[in-house]
Amino acid sequence: MPKYPPLGFTFAGVPCGLKKTGAADFALIASDRPCAAAAVFTRNKFAAAPVIYDRALVTENPAGLAAVAINSGCANACTGGAGLADAAAMAAEVEAALGLPARSCAVMSTGVIGVRLDMSKIAAGVRLAAPQLAAEGWDAASRAIMTTDTRPKVAFREVGGMRLFGMAKGAGMIHPNMATMLSTIVTDAAIEPAALAALLREAVEVSFNSVTVDGDTSTNDTVLVLANGASDRKLEAGSLELSAFASALTSLCTDLAQQIARDGEGATKFITVRVEGAASDADARTAAKSIANSPLVKTAFYGGDANWGRILCAVGYSEAEVDPMRADLWVAAGTGEGGNGRKGERENAPTRPLSHSLRLQLVAAGQPLAYSEAAASAIFAEKEIVVEVKLGLGDGQATVWTCDLSHEYVDINGHYRT
Amino acid sequence: MPKYPPLGFTFAGVPCGLKKTGAADFALIASDRPCAAAAVFTRNKFAAAPVIYDRALVTENPAGLAAVAINSGCANACTGGAGLADAAAMAAEVEAALGLPARSCAVMSTGVIGVRLDMSKIAAGVRLAAPQLAAEGWDAASRAIMTTDTRPKVAFREVGGMRLFGMAKGAGMIHPNMATMLSTIVTDAAIEPAALAALLREAVEVSFNSVTVDGDTSTNDTVLVLANGASDRKLEAGSLELSAFASALTSLCTDLAQQIARDGEGATKFITVRVEGAASDADARTAAKSIANSPLVKTAFYGGDANWGRILCAVGYSEAEVDPMRADLWVAAGTGEGGNGRKGERENAPTRPLSHSLRLQLVAAGQPLAYSEAAASAIFAEKEIVVEVKLGLGDGQATVWTCDLSHEYVDINGHYRT
Repeated sequence: MPKYPPLGFTFAGVPCGLKKTGAADFALIASDRPCAAAAVFTRNKFAAAPVIYDRALVTENPAGLAAVAINSGCANACTGGAGLADAAAMAAEVEAALGLPARSCAVMSTGVIGVRLDMSKIAAGVRLAAPQLAAEGWDAASRAIMTTDTRPKVAFREVGGMRLFGMAKGAGMIHPNMATMLSTIVTDAAIEPAALAALLREAVEVSFNSVTVDGDTSTNDTVLVLANGASDRKLEAGSLELSAFASALTSLCTDLAQQIARDGEGATKFITVRVEGAASDADARTAAKSIANSPLVKTAFYGGDANWGRILCAVGYSEAEVDPMRADLWVAAGTGEGGNGRKGERENAPTRPLSHSLRLQLVAAGQPLAYSEAAASAIFAEKEIVVEVKLGLGDGQATVWTCDLSHEYVDINGHYRT
Repeated sequence: MPKYPPLGFTFAGVPCGLKKTGAADFALIASDRPCAAAAVFTRNKFAAAPVIYDRALVTENPAGLAAVAINSGCANACTGGAGLADAAAMAAEVEAALGLPARSCAVMSTGVIGVRLDMSKIAAGVRLAAPQLAAEGWDAASRAIMTTDTRPKVAFREVGGMRLFGMAKGAGMIHPNMATMLSTIVTDAAIEPAALAALLREAVEVSFNSVTVDGDTSTNDTVLVLANGASDRKLEAGSLELSAFASALTSLCTDLAQQIARDGEGATKFITVRVEGAASDADARTAAKSIANSPLVKTAFYGGDANWGRILCAVGYSEAEVDPMRADLWVAAGTGEGGNGRKGERENAPTRPLSHSLRLQLVAAGQPLAYSEAAASAIFAEKEIVVEVKLGLGDGQATVWTCDLSHEYVDINGHYRT
């Protein structure tokens, strides 16, 4: 796929001195015209200053944002009123440097909690980044927001003459280091803020919210989308174009979310958990997340141990409705097919069975089958594994992505600040 | 404390061949007269066969139990109707060997899921254990129920001429290996089954249920108490004696629960999490468990990294009511004072502040204090650490115990079956 960002957007990523390593830690994204904006924020009650700032900003000025500034190396969280003033000053610094109106720049931060932002370094970052803004700066910008990420995460989509670009950071197995999942998505589609917000909420639910524990969100988590209309494709409510755009947005978010799970701290494996036949989609999601977040399941995958009892156990202690005598369990090598898809589409699509060469049913109607232990071990030894649970109760279904729990996860998180 | 088990109870622990190592894996407890029985079981929907068996048994015959048989090495879970028949056969085997009436023996199992019990080995265990039953057999019995436990867990109490003995297994950080927390408590007090059940529920809530995630229970978790009345001390409703017994039961359960946390798989540290000033006791428990179960908090303790932001973050993403501007945070070396206590007593007792030589306030009213990093690191380097959060909202309080998350946890759980 050619990597052309949407029209009218420019990007930069520079080092401003917040990271001790001297690596890039300040990213700037600008639009040549005002954008419709929508965002989804952490529900953590200790929301960081930039989250508080942006939440008010998007509510107040949903059709007038034109820039986003993001720093890594400091979360500006648990920093009280002073931290809030710092977030506002960071935005004002960008607005002044780019000649933008007041209250048109959003801000994000990620890094250690409880430490004030060094505003002289932020100012230096703005001075350095502003003259470097360019369409091809997306790669540098995506690298400047990394913390424990081992690689930048970007995705491009093009649909009906509209382009979308998204970048994300987050190396989170379960939001490690409260380590904040940040994503900025830009598009040259023309769309009303309210419609954009609805599409974003729907896309986030089946993508970013499907690689994490419910509510287990960091102080800084933010997904922000800006639509500047530079493509001149106007998305009317109910139109086919809007529907196509929504699918592209969901696909892009799913792509970024999967990249986060693949780059989980210390991850050696990528796990797709698929639950079908639940009493509701919500139940399916609850059961899938319970599996995906079980340290026991994750360590078994790491060790390549086909200890499938842990998978059913995690379903059993979730809040999902379960009839033990109806539950079936498969494991397979691979990544499953597609994601959760968009709701309207998914309901009309037939359930696509997984069709891997390495696929094994372990449990039928709640009881273990006489499967080959060697075949099970071969699947658990794979780098990409699908777990498929069928509850036999209804039409509810959900897919969740995660990674294994390794020694390196403990290394990374035992000494994050040092 | 002298280790005299309650009058009228005998114990044995023997190897019957379920564990590949040849270690003891079958425990038997018998009473010389019928007992009042009460139990608390897992809420996991994939409840194991022995749980299903005992649940019915205690309901049907709450004043007539006289024995408990426990095996390690096989959980008899996810084994369907055949597994249920095996559990019943195991009980019948014991009843026949000891000349007990039908339906007077409870059974428990712990070990790998999805594998049938080898009934010839169980029968061998019964034959071997029955003639060895003796008052001093409690030590052997407590060792025979171990799985990944590194040491047996027992506790004794004596109050008003009544004795209590409890043994437990579980090396669970978060119910690892779905590794089942099993505990059997016996006493020579004379008490009605309904009263015993009420006291057990209350004791379990502030003890065993305070070392684990809500609902994150294994397929086999069971706490069973048998009271045979051999002391001739009859506990009438509302009496001082009953209250004293209840305190002793709670204290014994707390002791066993803390032993489980201290022996957590791979644990190198024992963490006490105390939340006060919550809107309710339930909120305090929710916040405390959220801290105690955060892999990020646990790895930070393992690494000795004073990354306190993770603690507030875990409070923030719990369902507990929080006002970020009111939250205070302390850390201290040590174990805190006492446990949750009994409800009636706790409410009349003044809040006892922690008073350790190494104690440090890190956050006041939601904002970091200018504390000494060296002092914080010194506390995080301790083997026993107290985390104390004051929410400033009400009178709710709770204490939860946990351990850190280490490399060894990943080792143990990555290769449990192999």
